[in-house]
Amino acid sequence: MEGNGGASATTWRISRPPGRGAPRSDAGSMSIRVVLARVFSSVDASGPRPVLTLGSGDPTACASFRPPPEAEDAIVDALRSGKHNGYSPTVGVLPARRAIAEYLSQDLPYQLSPDDIYLTAGCCQAIDVMISILAQPGSNILLPKPGFPLYESRTMFSNLEERHFNLIPDRGWEADLESMEALADENTVAMVIINPSNPCGSVYSHDHLAKIAETARKLGIIIIADEVYDHLAFGNKPFIPMGVFADIVPVITLGSISKRWLVPGWRLGWIATCDPNGILKEAKVDKSIESYINITNDPATFIQGAVPKIIANTKEDYFNKILNLLRNSADLCYGKIKEIRGITCPHKPEGSMFVMVKLDLCYLDGILDDLDFCCRLAKEESVIVLPGSALGMKDWIRITFACDIPTLENALERIKSFCQRHANKLEA
Amino acid sequence: MEGNGGASATTWRISRPPGRGAPRSDAGSMSIRVVLARVFSSVDASGPRPVLTLGSGDPTACASFRPPPEAEDAIVDALRSGKHNGYSPTVGVLPARRAIAEYLSQDLPYQLSPDDIYLTAGCCQAIDVMISILAQPGSNILLPKPGFPLYESRTMFSNLEERHFNLIPDRGWEADLESMEALADENTVAMVIINPSNPCGSVYSHDHLAKIAETARKLGIIIIADEVYDHLAFGNKPFIPMGVFADIVPVITLGSISKRWLVPGWRLGWIATCDPNGILKEAKVDKSIESYINITNDPATFIQGAVPKIIANTKEDYFNKILNLLRNSADLCYGKIKEIRGITCPHKPEGSMFVMVKLDLCYLDGILDDLDFCCRLAKEESVIVLPGSALGMKDWIRITFACDIPTLENALERIKSFCQRHANKLEA
Repeated sequence: MEGNGGASATTWRISRPPGRGAPRSDAGSMSIRVVLARVFSSVDASGPRPVLTLGSGDPTACASFRPPPEAEDAIVDALRSGKHNGYSPTVGVLPARRAIAEYLSQDLPYQLSPDDIYLTAGCCQAIDVMISILAQPGSNILLPKPGFPLYESRTMFSNLEERHFNLIPDRGWEADLESMEALADENTVAMVIINPSNPCGSVYSHDHLAKIAETARKLGIIIIADEVYDHLAFGNKPFIPMGVFADIVPVITLGSISKRWLVPGWRLGWIATCDPNGILKEAKVDKSIESYINITNDPATFIQGAVPKIIANTKEDYFNKILNLLRNSADLCYGKIKEIRGITCPHKPEGSMFVMVKLDLCYLDGILDDLDFCCRLAKEESVIVLPGSALGMKDWIRITFACDIPTLENALERIKSFCQRHANKLEA
Repeated sequence: MEGNGGASATTWRISRPPGRGAPRSDAGSMSIRVVLARVFSSVDASGPRPVLTLGSGDPTACASFRPPPEAEDAIVDALRSGKHNGYSPTVGVLPARRAIAEYLSQDLPYQLSPDDIYLTAGCCQAIDVMISILAQPGSNILLPKPGFPLYESRTMFSNLEERHFNLIPDRGWEADLESMEALADENTVAMVIINPSNPCGSVYSHDHLAKIAETARKLGIIIIADEVYDHLAFGNKPFIPMGVFADIVPVITLGSISKRWLVPGWRLGWIATCDPNGILKEAKVDKSIESYINITNDPATFIQGAVPKIIANTKEDYFNKILNLLRNSADLCYGKIKEIRGITCPHKPEGSMFVMVKLDLCYLDGILDDLDFCCRLAKEESVIVLPGSALGMKDWIRITFACDIPTLENALERIKSFCQRHANKLEA
């Protein structure tokens, strides 16, 4: 048989039906990028106006949101030194881990050691690592709703059961701690807290964080604190790391230089075990992380090598400038949305780069749901926003306000025109 | 209860016993880095001589093995442009995919398109992706023995069953195709071929590659062609990509700039679907790859952005210089080993950076096995080589010859002294 008729004559056993308990390689179909691509495909390519994207958490295309030159210089120095072309240790190079331990410890009542830090290829890999090591058949994890869909994708891939607790819009998107207690059982392994919040733009108070810690302690589950937007708090509440409460509950902090330094494409993040009482160590969580990252990939070595200088050389002025930009954009965004009939913003953003906006479909004629809203907005106005259903919030949208002011103004004007054009005539 | 006694008074439900069918997060415990770290820990730190490492496939610490300056310049240009700080598309940026498609197509009888190329964070992530999308309960995969242990780790993690076919030392480490046919059944999903070979240093002939393709076709399974050492062939046989035979069997080629450009720490690799008959597309393998890489991390965007210039600007002279270095090192290594009683090299290396060496334990007094050999060599001579049991080959060792000539000479002299000192007196 072989050799005749080419490969197409053979029966190939490539795709098998996914079995029960199989890793779900289709878990990626719900990613933000996939949903945004679908929205983007609705844009009328022949339209006269440029496409304005308020869809992703990546403002790097905007002139105002450039990384600090010191960070770029640090990368060039590390590369040109010729010392960082080889493989790194799986946990990351020591000087970078030391620099991150010191950076994080500035805001903690105890000192992290380099051994508490594991470098990852962005915060996304940190999520991969934590979900993968926690996943066991029958286990479940508590995730915020709305949240960041990579958690759902990774839990789905790992066959870890996801259980959602609500974030409450009218309480500044605080976590519904009562529902959390009802959700958890003896198979619950962790809860995920994202602060400052993607997608809500909220920043949790010391009081709420303490209550979260007490709830986790009562339930006997650890906290995975996603702080990829750390320090991007521009409202009245300062950013407080969850690790402050690690004496109450073991905290595993996930972070990155992606957002504060505006370099999401550099893929440099970390896992930090905030474990002053040695509980994670006793449960061998450190060994599990080490073992798993052995078979995953590392951030580029010369980017690791640049971390100490990136942290040391970036000036406070730079961070303040970015916070001012975000504050102005958030104010503009919140103010403009108030003027638009058909959409409502329940909570003024005070952190991260996002705001959740509710669609009042009763005021909008013929709009079916959030996906329909976003696709028609893309088609008619060449404006991209993220459908809330990608985040578990049907009939909401997420708007990224981290962009240049003229772009933001223009985009919000177009959203206003869109809502006016689709206004329910009977109610007008 | 809560708030009293600190976190240590609570019972924490962190570590659960791994269940049947659970992902094995301990799968990383068998990595090369873990085994080498164990060998390294045997070194006598108070010893007068520097430690010489012939253990890993990373020669970047050696003065002779530097990346081409053009590649470094390409990275700096991409970074300084400010255009590559944001997230990339999950499949990678188009100019890089186009450049890699053209680069690979030079050696193929058909043209790859950018859509056939998926950028990965090094070849390691390419392995992760392919194993993850192929893993289904009950499925198995054919892996070479000796091989590259990340395949074993990832199949173990994904609960994919591994079945090993032998590479035959006396036949230039060719694959034992007869045993392969006996191993495969209706649940076999793929075979992995590593050429040029890590760890064997062999390069397969056109004839042997054709026979492998015919065998795969007969069995109805695709080939994963690990060509991370592509073009590092310095013997009589040229490097021929498996994709040449994709008309006989669908081939998924894994590659990287890590080895040919001597930048393993840059973490830039790829998956290429060599599928001229559209069989992989029909089985939706392309969709599976896309879906899975949506939830994994990408290589750094500015490194992706540098790829077209890295490929276009690196001169043939550079590649030739590296091939000459490798040829000279391999010759030296093979010649020296011949002089040493107690170890045997069955096949002169003609590619990659490695050679497999058999321990003749009958001539070595009191050496228990390969791990014992390596640990005692580290302790007594401060020389690091990899125990073959890390690669499935007990009582063999893998020597990396890709290093500066004086270092290699010195290390082999020390190995000779070690073997002489431990020579079986009765036989001497």
